[in-house]
Amino acid sequence: MSGLKRTTEKNLMVFSGRAHPELADEVAQILDQALVPTSAYEFANGEIYVRYEESVRGCDAFVIQSHTTPINEWIMEHLIMVDALKRASAKRITVVMPFWGYSRQDKKHRGREPISARLMADLFKTAGADRIITVDLHADQLQGFFDGPVDHLMALPILTDYIKEKYGDQELAVVSPDAGRIKVAERWAARLGEVPLAFIHKTRRTDVANEVVANRVVGDVKGRMCVLTDDMIDTGGTIVKAAEALMADGAAGVIIAATHAILSDPAVDRLKNCSATEVVITNTLPVPPEKQFDKLTTLSIAPLVARAIREVFEDGSVTSMFDGHA
Amino acid sequence: MSGLKRTTEKNLMVFSGRAHPELADEVAQILDQALVPTSAYEFANGEIYVRYEESVRGCDAFVIQSHTTPINEWIMEHLIMVDALKRASAKRITVVMPFWGYSRQDKKHRGREPISARLMADLFKTAGADRIITVDLHADQLQGFFDGPVDHLMALPILTDYIKEKYGDQELAVVSPDAGRIKVAERWAARLGEVPLAFIHKTRRTDVANEVVANRVVGDVKGRMCVLTDDMIDTGGTIVKAAEALMADGAAGVIIAATHAILSDPAVDRLKNCSATEVVITNTLPVPPEKQFDKLTTLSIAPLVARAIREVFEDGSVTSMFDGHA
Amino acid sequence: MSGLKRTTEKNLMVFSGRAHPELADEVAQILDQALVPTSAYEFANGEIYVRYEESVRGCDAFVIQSHTTPINEWIMEHLIMVDALKRASAKRITVVMPFWGYSRQDKKHRGREPISARLMADLFKTAGADRIITVDLHADQLQGFFDGPVDHLMALPILTDYIKEKYGDQELAVVSPDAGRIKVAERWAARLGEVPLAFIHKTRRTDVANEVVANRVVGDVKGRMCVLTDDMIDTGGTIVKAAEALMADGAAGVIIAATHAILSDPAVDRLKNCSATEVVITNTLPVPPEKQFDKLTTLSIAPLVARAIREVFEDGSVTSMFDGHA
Amino acid sequence: MSGLKRTTEKNLMVFSGRAHPELADEVAQILDQALVPTSAYEFANGEIYVRYEESVRGCDAFVIQSHTTPINEWIMEHLIMVDALKRASAKRITVVMPFWGYSRQDKKHRGREPISARLMADLFKTAGADRIITVDLHADQLQGFFDGPVDHLMALPILTDYIKEKYGDQELAVVSPDAGRIKVAERWAARLGEVPLAFIHKTRRTDVANEVVANRVVGDVKGRMCVLTDDMIDTGGTIVKAAEALMADGAAGVIIAATHAILSDPAVDRLKNCSATEVVITNTLPVPPEKQFDKLTTLSIAPLVARAIREVFEDGSVTSMFDGHA
Amino acid sequence: MSGLKRTTEKNLMVFSGRAHPELADEVAQILDQALVPTSAYEFANGEIYVRYEESVRGCDAFVIQSHTTPINEWIMEHLIMVDALKRASAKRITVVMPFWGYSRQDKKHRGREPISARLMADLFKTAGADRIITVDLHADQLQGFFDGPVDHLMALPILTDYIKEKYGDQELAVVSPDAGRIKVAERWAARLGEVPLAFIHKTRRTDVANEVVANRVVGDVKGRMCVLTDDMIDTGGTIVKAAEALMADGAAGVIIAATHAILSDPAVDRLKNCSATEVVITNTLPVPPEKQFDKLTTLSIAPLVARAIREVFEDGSVTSMFDGHA
Amino acid sequence: MSGLKRTTEKNLMVFSGRAHPELADEVAQILDQALVPTSAYEFANGEIYVRYEESVRGCDAFVIQSHTTPINEWIMEHLIMVDALKRASAKRITVVMPFWGYSRQDKKHRGREPISARLMADLFKTAGADRIITVDLHADQLQGFFDGPVDHLMALPILTDYIKEKYGDQELAVVSPDAGRIKVAERWAARLGEVPLAFIHKTRRTDVANEVVANRVVGDVKGRMCVLTDDMIDTGGTIVKAAEALMADGAAGVIIAATHAILSDPAVDRLKNCSATEVVITNTLPVPPEKQFDKLTTLSIAPLVARAIREVFEDGSVTSMFDGHA
Repeated sequence: MSGLKRTTEKNLMVFSGRAHPELADEVAQILDQALVPTSAYEFANGEIYVRYEESVRGCDAFVIQSHTTPINEWIMEHLIMVDALKRASAKRITVVMPFWGYSRQDKKHRGREPISARLMADLFKTAGADRIITVDLHADQLQGFFDGPVDHLMALPILTDYIKEKYGDQELAVVSPDAGRIKVAERWAARLGEVPLAFIHKTRRTDVANEVVANRVVGDVKGRMCVLTDDMIDTGGTIVKAAEALMADGAAGVIIAATHAILSDPAVDRLKNCSATEVVITNTLPVPPEKQFDKLTTLSIAPLVARAIREVFEDGSVTSMFDGHA
Repeated sequence: MSGLKRTTEKNLMVFSGRAHPELADEVAQILDQALVPTSAYEFANGEIYVRYEESVRGCDAFVIQSHTTPINEWIMEHLIMVDALKRASAKRITVVMPFWGYSRQDKKHRGREPISARLMADLFKTAGADRIITVDLHADQLQGFFDGPVDHLMALPILTDYIKEKYGDQELAVVSPDAGRIKVAERWAARLGEVPLAFIHKTRRTDVANEVVANRVVGDVKGRMCVLTDDMIDTGGTIVKAAEALMADGAAGVIIAATHAILSDPAVDRLKNCSATEVVITNTLPVPPEKQFDKLTTLSIAPLVARAIREVFEDGSVTSMFDGHA
Repeated sequence: MSGLKRTTEKNLMVFSGRAHPELADEVAQILDQALVPTSAYEFANGEIYVRYEESVRGCDAFVIQSHTTPINEWIMEHLIMVDALKRASAKRITVVMPFWGYSRQDKKHRGREPISARLMADLFKTAGADRIITVDLHADQLQGFFDGPVDHLMALPILTDYIKEKYGDQELAVVSPDAGRIKVAERWAARLGEVPLAFIHKTRRTDVANEVVANRVVGDVKGRMCVLTDDMIDTGGTIVKAAEALMADGAAGVIIAATHAILSDPAVDRLKNCSATEVVITNTLPVPPEKQFDKLTTLSIAPLVARAIREVFEDGSVTSMFDGHA
Repeated sequence: MSGLKRTTEKNLMVFSGRAHPELADEVAQILDQALVPTSAYEFANGEIYVRYEESVRGCDAFVIQSHTTPINEWIMEHLIMVDALKRASAKRITVVMPFWGYSRQDKKHRGREPISARLMADLFKTAGADRIITVDLHADQLQGFFDGPVDHLMALPILTDYIKEKYGDQELAVVSPDAGRIKVAERWAARLGEVPLAFIHKTRRTDVANEVVANRVVGDVKGRMCVLTDDMIDTGGTIVKAAEALMADGAAGVIIAATHAILSDPAVDRLKNCSATEVVITNTLPVPPEKQFDKLTTLSIAPLVARAIREVFEDGSVTSMFDGHA
Repeated sequence: MSGLKRTTEKNLMVFSGRAHPELADEVAQILDQALVPTSAYEFANGEIYVRYEESVRGCDAFVIQSHTTPINEWIMEHLIMVDALKRASAKRITVVMPFWGYSRQDKKHRGREPISARLMADLFKTAGADRIITVDLHADQLQGFFDGPVDHLMALPILTDYIKEKYGDQELAVVSPDAGRIKVAERWAARLGEVPLAFIHKTRRTDVANEVVANRVVGDVKGRMCVLTDDMIDTGGTIVKAAEALMADGAAGVIIAATHAILSDPAVDRLKNCSATEVVITNTLPVPPEKQFDKLTTLSIAPLVARAIREVFEDGSVTSMFDGHA
Repeated sequence: MSGLKRTTEKNLMVFSGRAHPELADEVAQILDQALVPTSAYEFANGEIYVRYEESVRGCDAFVIQSHTTPINEWIMEHLIMVDALKRASAKRITVVMPFWGYSRQDKKHRGREPISARLMADLFKTAGADRIITVDLHADQLQGFFDGPVDHLMALPILTDYIKEKYGDQELAVVSPDAGRIKVAERWAARLGEVPLAFIHKTRRTDVANEVVANRVVGDVKGRMCVLTDDMIDTGGTIVKAAEALMADGAAGVIIAATHAILSDPAVDRLKNCSATEVVITNTLPVPPEKQFDKLTTLSIAPLVARAIREVFEDGSVTSMFDGHA
């Protein structure tokens, strides 16, 4: 018999783009790993250059990048990192995108629009991604946009545990700021102990001219501490108006909670000045110091991501992390 | 110069599987076309045989099949029809699936489930489909499951026009039987003149044992004629319970409306005996005589499908059919 | 150096669809394995649901399904099982189809037909299959329909060993019921000790009206015990007529032998009542109790399939199982 | 509305490699076309260079090459021609291979063999082929090796018409030189008026040492003029031995007929000196002057190929050329 | 016969991203077309939104975008535009990228680098691009990075015609600023009438410490007006040092000429202050007013691009635009 | 838990085609391996047959073939070997092509040419290649032609070490025989200690009729021992003319050095009779005895290839073999 035999080893390596190195560092530390040293910079015309400073041949690569502003820049860096890994003979490439860029453009709202969320999935596949790890998708259907395994992590337990501990002794209600997001609110309500559910119904007011919109609370929130929940906060317009509507409807108070803190201008001003008592988010996206404010609480998803990476590397179960939900 | 020149012609041909020939016939008649004569039957062991009785070389093919029971049979026939067209040199193949089979398995609800709705999209692509025409997807995101153009038609105008004409003089409310489907109800409410919106919130009752569920109406329906709307009616359990909850909450009456009438047992019995005044559906799926009942009204989507086929064939605009929504 | 090293393990897991659980059980037992617990059922409208009850991450999956009646149902379940494995991060997926559904539609007999056997190969590839294990293909060329390794097992040794032991002391002849299948008969003849070969030639009788066919025995079978052999028995029409023709030509007796016992109606009646002494088959397809009859002998292919799975898992040689033929 | 409209034209262009220019010329003449002027030559190290001397942008290209000796050379030229067409923006590329190279390696006869016939299909697909036109495949299943339309032409009518006219008044039999090719002989027998059928059965002689093979005629050929038919003649060994066996069995005479005249050494010597009266072939492959001999008759398939090209170009029916067989 | 026939029309539509609308406008005007009205803007978090304001179904789309700063933004917009066209049923999509972003990362200079130029080709393919039109690639091999036709236009004739007319009466030399780009200089030299050729050889000076580089002129430039030519000017460092070396070596003067004027900082300052008499570029990339300077001459490539689009649309010849070079 | 666990082993196996077995043998010996026994021969019509004589299931395969004359034959054998490995379940297939056939056709020099170098990359991908190991590409961009990892080895250190040792005490210059290859010469110059650089500039002589070309030396070579270097020597015309031009220009002597010794006729005669002192090559391509001549020195690349194979197998670093260049 010809052939030289060796026992196969697998080698976990964690890579980070430049969008949110703090998160990647935290993940790596939990895994008791150093991030792979990587050169990354822009050429004068903005083209991104990437090179790994050690051999990555045969490794089981996890490439972490948060799709934050400047988002196209960081997505492109993410793609280029994957290409470099593929060409350097990484054995398997898992793209870790705590926030999936363009996830809101997940369908054609009107004719002749792109479906950019699917496009992103295809671009990563083309670059060489074998799998994706992501957190709290805008729509669960995005799992089906990628042609391969998607490990869909949920920040929900982290957020609800915090709420329960801090506000568990009050009369709570869970409120969705938008009719299309009630399903998420329902999951919250279940985890908080089957508390009542409400949502904000936006209607065009027929008595006034065209674009004016009224926010009506559907469901009973009177005297309750309302947990106003969404998957993300971008400019904060919808959620802040919802908070005001709740207070107007007699709510005892409002806590805003969301996984992805995009916080585009003027979100911070709006949140600071609104009637909500506390705004609870995670660090799937970086919140720079100038965007921090007093009543903002940031919970870390690094332990969740680290555990998922370990399960994937060791062929454990990601599903079991969520008691059968993935 | 070498070369023999000819003006290129395109040739519309409409094909039908055996699942719902009445719909295909109606579509063809509106297009002033005959369906292409096709042999299709099962071999003794259930394998399906298909053959076209005339040349289809170079044609612009539209292959209509409703994914109704026995659904795997008809999907397989649909796939085989596409394969035969591809190998017989059809120029372009548009799969017309008024109801997209497996559309509800559009995400992993729990770990280790398939995403069968995406699988169907990929199977049709593999068989040779260039494009898809479908009606009222369970989730709009399914458009992104197919790697190519999807023309997503809406039965909404057909249904709401009917409701408006018949019940427009009453105080209406639009009700979603499930928190996750309120977005659809919102579109209905808008088209019916910004009427009030409500939804049914299912909660596990904490005072009784484990699996018992209470249906609470969220929103005000008292004294109103409620249009209870969903994309499909399968066994009818949810929607009928919702109707009862509405009546219990003081609704003036209930009209059930849905695009896809799957009507699996015991849907017909439930609908017949429930307190709804009328059940309005379309014929995206066949309703055999034994499933017909007095208060059931079926509206035809054939004109909609026929117009979409014509627009696609003539490079017109499908978007324009819905005033900018597709 | 960054990186966390682990020795790689591979993990054999055997899965079974619902078409023929007895065969899968037998295979698993030989491998000293339990089948992976799997939920599988139909929704009310016939859509199939599948979910694995344990983590399959990183496993070397073998998914057994017999493509028996209702064949489209079971093929679809097979595809959905593969999709679920792919999305749950199985490392390698081997589709085990003891009988390859649609294998007879392996070419266009006439224009505008599908090539469904190739379509099946492509559908499984699309769903996520890496390799196929199958038994006694209708045409060896089907190996080339799949874009990947196909382990083509042969039931021939099992069948001929049985025949040799039981009838080895008689004067045998091997007979093909059809001109197109003589190559298979030749292999039988070689294994049975270069016994004489014959075949049945169907001719349209020129003295009688159009579709009447005469069966002529080509080759000498007088006084010989004829082993009438084919890859499959579907309705049994051809093979039973062949048996009668052999007896009419002076054969001493007829034994019918085939790998795949489809036994569509009225195969059982025909076989029971025909002049053949014994009908020998394997259990690539299930034979329900009501299809059993006295002179039917079923040999198990489970040991063969189990051994192939083991060789594939352990990187052994499947070829060596057949002395250099695969 | 934006947009500049033009009526679309299609432009038939016929290209020829260097393997068998006479056939391509004849095809082009029948189509009343000139072959597209093409530079093609080898560099010093044998690499092939190809360039078209006129614009081919947007054309409907038919690229004719016979896969004759040196066969790898001509297949590579064929592939390179397709690549050049793809990159020069041909609209559709039809590969015309009157003989499909490597068609006999259509399955793994033993483990660890390639399936080169499938490989060829994939290589042409990769190079840019949209469709294939070919003649008399070694196995019909090869149609399924290509992922796209295959127009499978049959030389059978040309050959049988010739035989009928010249030998129709004699008592004929059709004989297959090999058990595996009887199906073809059956088609011949049907077209010649349901004449009797026979085949040659090769057996290892058990009375003599290992590799000696006896050729036994199975079927009755006494006193008949035998049409010994196959899809191809390579070295002629099998067919010539079959001819001798037929004469030894009392045949009145033998005519050898085949579509593809590979005629590798020592085929010509064998055929010249054998007892066959006439050898009838077509020109799918070139027969150079030094391989011509008195009793060799070559029929042209150029009219068949030309008609198929015209039907494909004009979206006519190739199936109809064969009364429903393709 | 079934089927509805229509003469096929093709419909040229020109689209522009937001990177360099002036160029697209100029191209459209030459084609006597309006650009297709398009909505394009960023969401608050930087995600790009695109929608076409008229039906594009069945059109022959040409999508122009210059890959200029912010380059990742504009490439992403370009990709999203292609996706939207694909999903809106454009018939054919030609990506027009006058400057191919990341074209300099066309190989791994060192291990573990990406090949971003190939990645870009693959991303556009994945998004839905059928073909590419581009100008003066950094390396001609990039044509081979795209799996489809690439029309490679050359600005050389535009630039050399200008130089010949203005400086044709002087003693010219053509100089390459880098050993690796001499091939381009050779083409210039040929077009300017076989004038002498020189290049700048960068050597690490062995007499001084490590990174110091000496620029040596290889070739004779004394007393000649040197045309210093490259495909692009980025920061201008290399080319300006080359100009100084030429003057130091006795050149009569220097004209700098390049196709792509990236002009990253501090290119403008360097060019303004260097000894070159004139800097001649094209408008493949936009040069904003603040980057204009006195001795800068910009020639338009719009007529070239427009003519290429017309040839592609009308199935003419792009090759013929360059006398047989493409 | 279900599942049978095993530690995964990997198994290096080295395969060789018939083009240059001496090189493969040498590589295997260095790896302390036997080449896998392989049957390979031509059928009578030139079709190649390949079969491996031992099980290759699960192996890490390295398939060595030099693309030498008859080049299309050997490339086809290489492709067929890969196909056989894929279908026999090799785990990973690395194509080792010391010389990449058709590498000079890496772009369209003129319109309507193929890009055969890219075609070769795609053909190997289609056949089943996962990765490529190659030596000294004609253009580095070819790395980007393959969709997967390419390990690009450099013979430069082997060649320059030899030159330095033998001629290091003389005044050297490095000369490129062609303007387009100076970049390679620059790398030589750097490795030989920043020696001066020159190149040969071919100009059409304007004083004589059309095709006459003059070779001018650009750079100063007077009194220097010139190392005339290129990636390959085909017919030797260019390099021998360059040698003569150098001597005419006063060079002290000429050494010709190249990696790939194609040596097509009349290269040997030209080299023998030219004024060069020594011709140094490697054995990436076989040099048969009749092409050997006195002043020819062949250095072996087998150690380089063997080391690369070992690094790939053991997940080491190929980059490190060249101090950071790959």
